[in-house]
Amino acid sequence: MKQRDTVAIIGVGLIGGSVGSGLLRRGLARRVVGIGRRESTLQKAKERGTISEATTDLAAGVSQAELIVVCTPVCHIVEHAKTAAESAPKDAIITDAGSIKSGIVSELEATLADGPAFVGSHPMAGSEKSGPEFADADLFEDRLAIVTPTERTPPAALAEVEEFWRSLGARVTRMAPEEHDAAAGAVSHLPHVLASALAAATPESLLPLAAGGWLDTTRVAAGDVELWRQILTENRVHALRSLAEFEKTLSSFRDALKRGDDHLLVRLLEQGKRRRDAVGN
Amino acid sequence: MKQRDTVAIIGVGLIGGSVGSGLLRRGLARRVVGIGRRESTLQKAKERGTISEATTDLAAGVSQAELIVVCTPVCHIVEHAKTAAESAPKDAIITDAGSIKSGIVSELEATLADGPAFVGSHPMAGSEKSGPEFADADLFEDRLAIVTPTERTPPAALAEVEEFWRSLGARVTRMAPEEHDAAAGAVSHLPHVLASALAAATPESLLPLAAGGWLDTTRVAAGDVELWRQILTENRVHALRSLAEFEKTLSSFRDALKRGDDHLLVRLLEQGKRRRDAVGN
Repeated sequence: MKQRDTVAIIGVGLIGGSVGSGLLRRGLARRVVGIGRRESTLQKAKERGTISEATTDLAAGVSQAELIVVCTPVCHIVEHAKTAAESAPKDAIITDAGSIKSGIVSELEATLADGPAFVGSHPMAGSEKSGPEFADADLFEDRLAIVTPTERTPPAALAEVEEFWRSLGARVTRMAPEEHDAAAGAVSHLPHVLASALAAATPESLLPLAAGGWLDTTRVAAGDVELWRQILTENRVHALRSLAEFEKTLSSFRDALKRGDDHLLVRLLEQGKRRRDAVGN
Repeated sequence: MKQRDTVAIIGVGLIGGSVGSGLLRRGLARRVVGIGRRESTLQKAKERGTISEATTDLAAGVSQAELIVVCTPVCHIVEHAKTAAESAPKDAIITDAGSIKSGIVSELEATLADGPAFVGSHPMAGSEKSGPEFADADLFEDRLAIVTPTERTPPAALAEVEEFWRSLGARVTRMAPEEHDAAAGAVSHLPHVLASALAAATPESLLPLAAGGWLDTTRVAAGDVELWRQILTENRVHALRSLAEFEKTLSSFRDALKRGDDHLLVRLLEQGKRRRDAVGN
């Protein structure tokens, strides 16, 4: 695997910290510069060995980086990538870890010109936890990392970014940014809405009775509210489309129960089980 | 803790097997007689030490039991409890582990007269797994066991059944059967419908992209179809009522996304997070 000299990570929370840990533990980078707003978070990340250097100065932090990974919340990615591009070496490569892609990719492609190349990424890892204290060098092991090139993406930069995620243990898949967002709406944003709505709709008096099924089904509702506000707002078109599809199936469930239609009920339960079983744990 | 001589368990799957294991491992019963339809399942249960004796003859199996625990699927509980009552000692106590209670309790109270007493139970444990190979002596540890007495329940029998679940490590709570079913509709049956509908609504082509959120939110959809058909059919009134409540909240989510109402979206996400955080893992 390629050993890089300097990688800069903007945002050292769960994802950024895990990228840093993974690079350092696997000997994939000599220096990992963590860039953040708060000294205290950076300090914590450095103490845990998730980064080797820390700075609150984005321009200084990226100035020697070959690769820059933007791991800040989705609403800051464009701004951070632009600022990084201004101070990074001309041949640096910038990628990100945002859960939505089309807006970010098209905005950056429209502005970044002959400086560093940008390749959009979305590692499908993470959880309802957040913060550098949950960083894990193996977070991406066997997880899917989606990269979202366009016709304007330099092939060499794409290859570098794919190699980067693979070096952290991820399986890499390519999708167009818009195709990614439609898929994420269905397999990630819709589940979040359902989990959150279910938790919100459960009367407080019944919470002491919550057991395995409720706990699993609502788990992601514990996720960071501001992060999810941004994701759902940014990807509302696809989230709403997935929700509409889901509601058709839910309607069939309701009809089956209302009419006492066992045949339909079994067909729906079987289809759900089949798709769930197909994925595994 | 009380040591019983003979406990009979009708149905030695995940729940029945776990009851047996728990009793034997904790020295709470000298003999645990497992009663089932299939020799092969009984044999497996016996080999794993979840029961000490096995029989396919229900009448013979309960003939010396002080306590009989009916752990068969909900649609068989009434029939099995009735048959057990005919052959069990007059002072035996019968309980069950069914996920729904009012139909079972009222039917049994209407028929069981001066023989063994029946006390309805629902241990809130189990998972998407089924079968004696998943039996676990500690399955009920720190889980809630709901007992559903009525004014016709003999207090001594109620105390015995409560003590029984406590001896397996459970926390015990009393609810009226109807109150139990309404609560289970909200915290167990509704989550199952949502998980199943989400899994069923996810296009097959997107399953390879399923990650943490989808996996958690759909986990229970892998549960046994016939078991859930019975539960949902039997408790359809409450399941539909909980579904209607849920759909109001889901509607608010949709409106918030459609209108780009960030304020409402944040309020909903926050309410979901608050309720989820209140319960823990």
